[in-house]
Amino acid sequence: MPVGTQATVKSMMPDQLRDLNVEILLCNSYHLFLRPGHETVARLGGLHRFMAWDRPILTDSGGFQVFSLSSLRDIGEDGVRFQSHLDGSTHFLSPELAVDVQTALGSDIMMILDDCLAYPASHFDADRSMKRSLVWAERCKRHFDSVGGDRRPTQSLFAIVQGSIYPDLRKESGERLVAMDFPGYAIGGLAVGEPKPLMYEIIEKVEPYLPEERPRYLMGVGTPADLVEAVARGVDMFDCVMPTRHARNGWLFTRDGHIVIRHAKYKEDPAPIDASCECAVCKTFSRAYLRHLFIANEILSSVLNTIHNLHFYLDTIRRIRQFIEFHRFDEILTETRKLGAH
Amino acid sequence: MPVGTQATVKSMMPDQLRDLNVEILLCNSYHLFLRPGHETVARLGGLHRFMAWDRPILTDSGGFQVFSLSSLRDIGEDGVRFQSHLDGSTHFLSPELAVDVQTALGSDIMMILDDCLAYPASHFDADRSMKRSLVWAERCKRHFDSVGGDRRPTQSLFAIVQGSIYPDLRKESGERLVAMDFPGYAIGGLAVGEPKPLMYEIIEKVEPYLPEERPRYLMGVGTPADLVEAVARGVDMFDCVMPTRHARNGWLFTRDGHIVIRHAKYKEDPAPIDASCECAVCKTFSRAYLRHLFIANEILSSVLNTIHNLHFYLDTIRRIRQFIEFHRFDEILTETRKLGAH
Repeated sequence: MPVGTQATVKSMMPDQLRDLNVEILLCNSYHLFLRPGHETVARLGGLHRFMAWDRPILTDSGGFQVFSLSSLRDIGEDGVRFQSHLDGSTHFLSPELAVDVQTALGSDIMMILDDCLAYPASHFDADRSMKRSLVWAERCKRHFDSVGGDRRPTQSLFAIVQGSIYPDLRKESGERLVAMDFPGYAIGGLAVGEPKPLMYEIIEKVEPYLPEERPRYLMGVGTPADLVEAVARGVDMFDCVMPTRHARNGWLFTRDGHIVIRHAKYKEDPAPIDASCECAVCKTFSRAYLRHLFIANEILSSVLNTIHNLHFYLDTIRRIRQFIEFHRFDEILTETRKLGAH
Repeated sequence: MPVGTQATVKSMMPDQLRDLNVEILLCNSYHLFLRPGHETVARLGGLHRFMAWDRPILTDSGGFQVFSLSSLRDIGEDGVRFQSHLDGSTHFLSPELAVDVQTALGSDIMMILDDCLAYPASHFDADRSMKRSLVWAERCKRHFDSVGGDRRPTQSLFAIVQGSIYPDLRKESGERLVAMDFPGYAIGGLAVGEPKPLMYEIIEKVEPYLPEERPRYLMGVGTPADLVEAVARGVDMFDCVMPTRHARNGWLFTRDGHIVIRHAKYKEDPAPIDASCECAVCKTFSRAYLRHLFIANEILSSVLNTIHNLHFYLDTIRRIRQFIEFHRFDEILTETRKLGAH
């Protein structure tokens, strides 16, 4: 899922996303709650209409951003009080409000509000946080089931497994959430600073507790290699700002690793970013032109780089699917590991 | 002509410009001379290939930017020495180099190097500057005719009439340039701070000296009303950053004047920018969404606003053409004057 934080995948028109075969994108409730406000979006016909995107949208609950972006946080059993990173105004986010915000936005997949812990955390803190998240998950589900009316048949609420790096906590979180019967399960609290091997290990530990026939969603991950490694461990869904944010910073993905487009060696390079890439940018523009746009700080630099990087990510997922279909997933895993993490 | 200063109409992909029926665009030689360098562009196959634009390109000579952007200027009979606004490096631009730069870029229409005078200027200064421009025009033409080889049949060099606000100087400049026989004539040295009525008056004074069957190009103008007023005075071609720059500043043109999209009154406005507009943005997005993108400082704000404003300008020209064709140009002139300058 490309990330469209503020009701726009940065620099992309909806048409361009459709041309890239984006099937679903993610928007951030925290940002839209603060600006323009979920009620404003609702009055304008919901998020799909607001941003002119007619395919599925997943929204997070806002929890992660409250914990990572807002300046003051006060967590209680009932929810979290926080100050807006925009204007310092104070707000209170409860499990019920998280559902209400996402209902107002009209997202197709909503996420429960969870207590997001920093890394590293002690077993004691992780246990308390995980248990609070369980209570909040239950409250979200109850509220979700009791409100929403006619739209509910097309909307889903996913749970989020927490428990930091502790297998016993992850097990408890997974089992108890599955007992509540959600249509999908996310793995949260990873890619927050822990070493890569530990992240992979935790995914492996969590996976057996999640039902095979429900989507598993690894939140906020990751590099192209991470996608392959996580799929190898049973993950189905991802979101990450990496393709779009890196694009704006001139970091472009290719089959052979990445290139940093501002480098002087591309000044007169007539080749495309990646000769094997089928995207509109690689078919049309040279590295020299893309370098020029980046150096000249042109808006088109962000546009073109984003198209390429999103194409690369979506193509990575398409390739993974094909390899799985042909029972040759091991090959793509081997290829990925040979290249090294990138 | 939309302005594509650094080999890109800011925020626009070539496809989007073609969809807007842009027939020709302008690039700035000064910027491309400094970055990435005209020789680099030439080695990459010329400007059309570099920026993937297969329709005509007009380039200015660089003179105007040398006079308006660079920090140190030293004008002599042979040309102008200046410091780059990017890194302070020193360069010397002569009439011959101006032609060489534009030849390297491969522009379809080149402009002669002229001595660009600030407003106001005395008759004495304007006379000297106009005469220097005449000498430079002759040198440009001679150099243009002697170099360029096979590409020349598809390339044109336009002259620029100077003479500030003095009718006698404008007359002399016009007559002597026409005697040199250029395929097109620009009116330079206007829209540099003089009052609007004076600008219109000078256009009226210059026009009789320019051959009817050759294009007349008013450089760096202007508002939608200016286009109508200038066409009324015999002008055929325009370039201006106004539609694109104003777009990025949230200033959007409509048939009824303009709107400033950041205003709070648009926060929940579900209407398009202009209900009578046929552009892709007006058919898809609300003012509320465009306001949100602008306030949130999103790149897509520039993209969408630019599409709308360029459509508005190009549509203004299309309407002017239609009204002329139906011998009803007076109506559009009356309509424009009723609205007042915008």
